[in-house]
Amino acid sequence: MSATIPDRHSEQPGRIMSGEIVEQPAVLRRILDEGGPKIREIAEAVAAKKPRFVLLTARGTSDNAALYAKYLLEVRLGIPCGLTSMSTTTAYGAQPDLTDVLVITVSQSGGSPDLVASTKAAREAGAITLAVTNNAESELAAVSEFHIDVLAGPEKALPATKTYTAELLSLYLFVEGLRGGDGAAAAALPDLAQRILARGAEVKQLAGRYRFAERMVLTSRGYGYPTAKEAALKLMETSYIPALSYSGADLLHGPLAMIDAISPVIAIVTDGKGGEALQPVLERLRGRGADLVVIGDEAEVAKASAGFALPTDGVPEELQPILEILPLQLLAYEVTIARGQDPDAPRALAKVTETR
Amino acid sequence: MSATIPDRHSEQPGRIMSGEIVEQPAVLRRILDEGGPKIREIAEAVAAKKPRFVLLTARGTSDNAALYAKYLLEVRLGIPCGLTSMSTTTAYGAQPDLTDVLVITVSQSGGSPDLVASTKAAREAGAITLAVTNNAESELAAVSEFHIDVLAGPEKALPATKTYTAELLSLYLFVEGLRGGDGAAAAALPDLAQRILARGAEVKQLAGRYRFAERMVLTSRGYGYPTAKEAALKLMETSYIPALSYSGADLLHGPLAMIDAISPVIAIVTDGKGGEALQPVLERLRGRGADLVVIGDEAEVAKASAGFALPTDGVPEELQPILEILPLQLLAYEVTIARGQDPDAPRALAKVTETR
Repeated sequence: MSATIPDRHSEQPGRIMSGEIVEQPAVLRRILDEGGPKIREIAEAVAAKKPRFVLLTARGTSDNAALYAKYLLEVRLGIPCGLTSMSTTTAYGAQPDLTDVLVITVSQSGGSPDLVASTKAAREAGAITLAVTNNAESELAAVSEFHIDVLAGPEKALPATKTYTAELLSLYLFVEGLRGGDGAAAAALPDLAQRILARGAEVKQLAGRYRFAERMVLTSRGYGYPTAKEAALKLMETSYIPALSYSGADLLHGPLAMIDAISPVIAIVTDGKGGEALQPVLERLRGRGADLVVIGDEAEVAKASAGFALPTDGVPEELQPILEILPLQLLAYEVTIARGQDPDAPRALAKVTETR
Repeated sequence: MSATIPDRHSEQPGRIMSGEIVEQPAVLRRILDEGGPKIREIAEAVAAKKPRFVLLTARGTSDNAALYAKYLLEVRLGIPCGLTSMSTTTAYGAQPDLTDVLVITVSQSGGSPDLVASTKAAREAGAITLAVTNNAESELAAVSEFHIDVLAGPEKALPATKTYTAELLSLYLFVEGLRGGDGAAAAALPDLAQRILARGAEVKQLAGRYRFAERMVLTSRGYGYPTAKEAALKLMETSYIPALSYSGADLLHGPLAMIDAISPVIAIVTDGKGGEALQPVLERLRGRGADLVVIGDEAEVAKASAGFALPTDGVPEELQPILEILPLQLLAYEVTIARGQDPDAPRALAKVTETR
């Protein structure tokens, strides 16, 4: 099932993870400068095939990037999408008719045998196949009709950070390309990411709130929802704090009962329609006396128990997820350090998870 | 956002929920006897329209039923499916082209304004629309082209139980109808459900293990995965224990780090390919010294720390979810009673959640 786990205890705990977090502005710039034209070419070739449906396949962090792409495809392109339940093909041998279906498989390593197998099967079933990976030499890239390299450079930390934002930006540029756009709105991201990552001291202070937390809840709506899921995953795999994530609407269907004054809630409030749709949920949470931390707009942060104001000046809502996750990656790192653990050495995990 | 919360504190805590749990064998029998022919008719009418893609829309417990239907549709019919991200239409006004798309909306009450609005929008966008509700007089039933009544009778408890299994069986019969089958394999379910629900004493003993649990993890693969999600929701909304659910494969991508000897894991091991695919995950969990409770096959239960053996004699894997959830509903009830709370009165919840 798993590869041997290398000894990742570095002299300075979290050195590998923090090093990759701060690489992100440079990675985003590389994608815009070097990756953009190639992504646009691929998007044009895919658009010419006129896909009617999109299926997205991924696991872990890449699954959260796939969910982001689902929102983009549905909202900006009006193409119905689904996230694959992979066991339907790998365990049950389902053979769906995939004519006119674009199957996008997202994977940092491009090496998971189940993703390779399901992509192969999709191609044989008539799908247009696109792999989005951080390894152009990977088997997944080889078996797919199209491949986008997210150009993040080798990722050595077990908790994925720079490949997540690289996947988001690459998928954004791809979807913009499908609709004939140039993705120019993304140009501001590298500098904004730099400014956010320079505010580590603020996040460190925020981390103090969670040092002793026994659980956490993350919530958002719309474009911010993948951020809530990815932040929960990051917190769990580094600090081991059980972190539950819900879309704001789902939170009201049951899990709200679990929230009390000792359960901190992190809300990602995008500056746009998702943030607006989250307002009634925030009201309910405040009404229940929840400890509410807001990542987002300054005015929203001011109304919460604490937060991190995002400089989204002019960045459209659909690009904000690339910025929102940055303070949350730092938070996962800082909480883990505060708890005396090493973010570079999550117990029990291997970099390439060989699920079948 | 929410209706006024009625005073549900009954004299005997959990009386309403437990009353509805034990109704399930009768509800299943009613669906088979009275609902079956009508469901088959609807399935034939939908099949004649030759849908190429299915989108499922639901929230909370019904969303778990929708996920079950997604597995059925993909595995048994080979139709690609997606679960709707509802905010794409309600918040962002996405207008996907839904020609040849079957949109199935599942809702106990049929009254959530967002589900009504998204179903209307889908119908206008060319979709074949099917509502699956427990209220034939509901607005959702009215705005949909087709409607399946799950015939569970009024559900008064806030934690949904009998409408969940009623939704599962109705969706199963619908999918069987789509493929021209008669769903005869389901005939054994009412009696088996009765036998399982008679074993309350066993579940009560199991509940003792979790009385002081600070968190729980539920896992499964394939057809059992919706059961893991629904059991987690049930535990959270009644006992407030944070319960995380993962497909076995996803568990290995990060959250595994969180599992230690004090984090109980409940694994739903179906008797079939899903259970086989879960084996490597069970091995990893045993290797990490996790407290592992198995719901499923007797031999699997024997290898675990504890469990509940399911009498699945001859019931095909795709029908087992209708049985698997029963001991877990009882468990949520018993743990809540053991913790001195009232399962009939989850704080902060209303029966019809009016998300928009």
